[in-house]
Amino acid sequence: MKRKIYLDMHSREEAQQLFWSRFKHFRTGEEAIPSRSAYGRVTAGPVAARFSSPSFHSAAMDGLAVRAEDTFGASDDAPLTLRFDTGEAVMINTGYPLPPDKNAVIMIEQVLLSDDGTRGVIRAPVYPWQHVRKVGEDIVATELLFPTGHQIRPADVAALITGGCATVTVRKQPRLVIIPTGSELVQLEDHQATVPPGKTIESNSAVLAGLAVQAGAKVKITPIVSDDFDSIKNHLEAVLATDADLVVINAGSSAGSADYTVRIIEELGEVLVHGVTIMPGKPTILGVINDKPVIGIPGYPVSAIIAMEQFVVPLLARMQGIHVPPPVAVRALLAKDLPSPSGIEEFRRMIVGRIGDNFVAVPLKKGAGAITTLTRANGILRIKAASEGEMHGTPVDIDLLAPLPQVERTLLCTGSHDLCLDVLNDFLQKEDPAYPLASTHIGSLGGIMALKQGMCHFAGSHLLDPTDGSYNTTYIRKYLPGRDIRIVTLVHRQQGFIVPLGNPKKITGIRDLFNDGVSFINRQAGSGTRVLLDYELQRNDLDGDGIRGYDEDEYTHMAVAVAVLSGKVDVGLGIKSAAKALGLDFVPLVEERYDLLIPGELFDSPMIQAVLAVIDTPLFQETVEKMGGYSTRDTGKLVAMG
Amino acid sequence: MKRKIYLDMHSREEAQQLFWSRFKHFRTGEEAIPSRSAYGRVTAGPVAARFSSPSFHSAAMDGLAVRAEDTFGASDDAPLTLRFDTGEAVMINTGYPLPPDKNAVIMIEQVLLSDDGTRGVIRAPVYPWQHVRKVGEDIVATELLFPTGHQIRPADVAALITGGCATVTVRKQPRLVIIPTGSELVQLEDHQATVPPGKTIESNSAVLAGLAVQAGAKVKITPIVSDDFDSIKNHLEAVLATDADLVVINAGSSAGSADYTVRIIEELGEVLVHGVTIMPGKPTILGVINDKPVIGIPGYPVSAIIAMEQFVVPLLARMQGIHVPPPVAVRALLAKDLPSPSGIEEFRRMIVGRIGDNFVAVPLKKGAGAITTLTRANGILRIKAASEGEMHGTPVDIDLLAPLPQVERTLLCTGSHDLCLDVLNDFLQKEDPAYPLASTHIGSLGGIMALKQGMCHFAGSHLLDPTDGSYNTTYIRKYLPGRDIRIVTLVHRQQGFIVPLGNPKKITGIRDLFNDGVSFINRQAGSGTRVLLDYELQRNDLDGDGIRGYDEDEYTHMAVAVAVLSGKVDVGLGIKSAAKALGLDFVPLVEERYDLLIPGELFDSPMIQAVLAVIDTPLFQETVEKMGGYSTRDTGKLVAMG
Repeated sequence: MKRKIYLDMHSREEAQQLFWSRFKHFRTGEEAIPSRSAYGRVTAGPVAARFSSPSFHSAAMDGLAVRAEDTFGASDDAPLTLRFDTGEAVMINTGYPLPPDKNAVIMIEQVLLSDDGTRGVIRAPVYPWQHVRKVGEDIVATELLFPTGHQIRPADVAALITGGCATVTVRKQPRLVIIPTGSELVQLEDHQATVPPGKTIESNSAVLAGLAVQAGAKVKITPIVSDDFDSIKNHLEAVLATDADLVVINAGSSAGSADYTVRIIEELGEVLVHGVTIMPGKPTILGVINDKPVIGIPGYPVSAIIAMEQFVVPLLARMQGIHVPPPVAVRALLAKDLPSPSGIEEFRRMIVGRIGDNFVAVPLKKGAGAITTLTRANGILRIKAASEGEMHGTPVDIDLLAPLPQVERTLLCTGSHDLCLDVLNDFLQKEDPAYPLASTHIGSLGGIMALKQGMCHFAGSHLLDPTDGSYNTTYIRKYLPGRDIRIVTLVHRQQGFIVPLGNPKKITGIRDLFNDGVSFINRQAGSGTRVLLDYELQRNDLDGDGIRGYDEDEYTHMAVAVAVLSGKVDVGLGIKSAAKALGLDFVPLVEERYDLLIPGELFDSPMIQAVLAVIDTPLFQETVEKMGGYSTRDTGKLVAMG
Repeated sequence: MKRKIYLDMHSREEAQQLFWSRFKHFRTGEEAIPSRSAYGRVTAGPVAARFSSPSFHSAAMDGLAVRAEDTFGASDDAPLTLRFDTGEAVMINTGYPLPPDKNAVIMIEQVLLSDDGTRGVIRAPVYPWQHVRKVGEDIVATELLFPTGHQIRPADVAALITGGCATVTVRKQPRLVIIPTGSELVQLEDHQATVPPGKTIESNSAVLAGLAVQAGAKVKITPIVSDDFDSIKNHLEAVLATDADLVVINAGSSAGSADYTVRIIEELGEVLVHGVTIMPGKPTILGVINDKPVIGIPGYPVSAIIAMEQFVVPLLARMQGIHVPPPVAVRALLAKDLPSPSGIEEFRRMIVGRIGDNFVAVPLKKGAGAITTLTRANGILRIKAASEGEMHGTPVDIDLLAPLPQVERTLLCTGSHDLCLDVLNDFLQKEDPAYPLASTHIGSLGGIMALKQGMCHFAGSHLLDPTDGSYNTTYIRKYLPGRDIRIVTLVHRQQGFIVPLGNPKKITGIRDLFNDGVSFINRQAGSGTRVLLDYELQRNDLDGDGIRGYDEDEYTHMAVAVAVLSGKVDVGLGIKSAAKALGLDFVPLVEERYDLLIPGELFDSPMIQAVLAVIDTPLFQETVEKMGGYSTRDTGKLVAMG
């Protein structure tokens, strides 16, 4: 195994400059294609109209075609009669050609027709060219319809056709070939029942292809090539011998023992960049072989996507002669501290929403392996290399991944985790308008802190006060004094022990956690479930230090269930629906109330009212009950602060 | 001919409500398709993960897999040696499965390897699960990947595949059939040399199809049907008998004699709406036959597009269960008065740019026949039905048609018209970044007024001061006293008489305009060309009232040239390049200077500097000289205010 050595890491800007400048004048060829199917294609040169439009003087209204001079003098006092039989006036429909001896149209509404339809009476004159669409009023033959580098939209096709351009000369689509490499990779289609042990489903090439197609490319994906120097080299040489314009090699780009890409590019051509000071995306390789760009894209899915978006997608645009505008950005308040290593530009996936007058940005996990941080995100925060991170509450600029109006409708939910929030999200998406529900999980107490700082629209919470058996009210009084917080019950739910199928360690109560050979996984401090556990321990006069695993914790019910499923631990405390979802067994301990805490000033907003309307529906409540471990007997009820 | 009678016109909102509510629960069917090709499709229900990801505990770093407990105690003072032969530590690459007896990874950078590669020395302990990607860290089997109604993006495909979903259940694409009707319509492909007299090229169906495809539909376009009641009716019945989900009948929807659509829908089904109080788009028909939506779309291209976007595109989205977010809007200052009829909601096409801190919106022509008003526009102003228009300088909300960053880069140029501005636009689009150049033509003096009001980035002007032969400086001093305006010469150009080929009326000088049988077309007051004409008349002691057509005017050189080409007039005054473009003859009268007037405060902006850089290039100047009638001897020179 070699150390990870990048002899000459570059910043993103340097790497882009080094790479793109090498292909500065590299454009795909031109081709003339039918204008009718030119949507999305890019003009290779200026496009001039061949025909004028209209190509003849035509009526702009239904009415009478006349010579304006013949109508002068008509008035209320002196109505003028125009005869049709002599051709003095001619009936004409909108869009029809004006007879050559006529120069104006009188709207039919302003004409009194004789009963026999042979004459019309008018009471006002018309001026020359009134209600006439003149030749070239829209398009003059020879005029510039579109400049070079114009990306053709539907309405543009009408202008092309109207201007007589049956074909239009556009840039050819760049041909991109993607080579997935990695002995650990398998195709999902070959393993639909389960992932073979130690194998990983190859998913990057489909995403990279999607991004390239969006950028106008034609894409081929080759079969997976195993981690073998000669296999990859031979395969790459074969691809380069085709008409490919550029090649992406996916994975094999880390500096571990599986790294052959950089050596192969070195042998066959030139490595321009190996290693970029971005995270995710550091092991990116930018090279050139036979004047063709060859890019080594990292293996982790988020790294792969960011490397593709930063280095390849803009190159595809340039090869077609278009300049992609920068993403739309908003300034948002950061919902929590974000430390970031100095010397690395970090691309952090964020969920952004609007709360009152402010945008708020909630960071998602940083892991490059977590594709869901990208599918859930609606924005990206770029933390500059020189920065060591950003403080909570700081205004930061976020590049949006979704249209601004959608971001503005995004509901930020935080606090405790419950699977009903997924159901709520699904139901909210069926409403019109739809409000995307973005929930992050920081525990009930964390949710109360987020409410305090104005960083969420509402928070899920199930904080028990052992002294009186109440939920949440005590904590709101303590941490949010003077704040108007409305408490709406979402569900009652069962908390209990999540254990493997058959309950092999025979967990029946809290004392069994202390048994020999029983390992446990805890929830994080500040979570309602942790509060519950500690209350139950105290009530039974037990000390958590005696439980193996008491000090290790997870952040969600599902993570606890996964720890049990994978055999990492024997038991965890959580909700029944999490056990049921993974086919585990469940030993009930207690029923608790799970509420939504909503700031009073947001309560009447359409977003919150949409949430409340959904949870009031029988269909939502039935769906929740079906999950098991839930009661909706108080769902939607407002809880008095007492 | 019938009068245009709409018995029961509806507002846009009423019409949408009436129409859409009829199809409120109308969704296309479901189909399971491969996730790999699901881009842009819409989930028909909630999508749950089938596999967890990772599906095994794996190394998050290259390094040594160990039991964390075995490393406790290691420190700088007490380095710890881990043996590989006993399996105490195992070399592992990123992404590879953690051996079952291990629970942590030590980064390779933190290991000192023995020379023979059989041992590694560490100087710090690791904690359990450090640098381990745990099962389900990204995706937990059964968790919600996407809610109902989610439109699938490239990264989403990775989540689907990683989550074990080889297929995904999505809404079927709605099948739309477009029927173009109109006896005056011809296909461009059949008439590539010229448009037959009185005929119009059918261009709407390609645009309507493009909009529908963008909205996720599958589209068929039928052959053109002539304006005949039975033909259209039989054709429509045949289409309705297919698997079409909805039908668009284009044109035939005005209330003129060609209007059969409304009667046919009445006969076969039900007309829900006939006539909507919008402009363009008034003659829209919304109907239903056999539970299928049937829409009569007006014939004018802009009307057609607006009716399609307002009524059909949102319906296509609803049929797939998605809600399209409203367009992004900006608040912009209106560059000129916009009167608008009361009782009609007007969709006015606008060019929007950013000047300093303000967005500025310049209205384009209102004609529903002018497709170029849509292709040139980057925004739409909706003037409410209750409004009689908006005053110049008023802040108005504009729905953007282009991405905001592109709007922010749009150069607003106004004032006098010159064909070199098209060349400039084309060259600017080849630069990086590209600045779209949007020019509107209101004459030189109009441009100076726009500069005064901060409504443009620069203005083209060629205003002669007859007293000293200077251009522009006198007018700037008079109308923009105290303002810092920089004058940069764009070109010298020839002005003269534009006459038909062969100069049949033998125009050789200004006196010939007074000849018997000579008709003339003027330029509008405030244009430099009008100033020039009046100066030449005065210099020769002539009175314009003696010229036939002196009181009729056009706004551009090309419009004057078109008037000559179409035989409407015998002669006009204009630039040589306009005559040359349309194959007309040109009788030179005088050479004049055409300048760009630029506010001092914008002069150093990247946008203006990009303009100046382009006009300084030899390639730009060669291209301009080739057009004929231009000299670039002073192009790019700064003119002293004197």
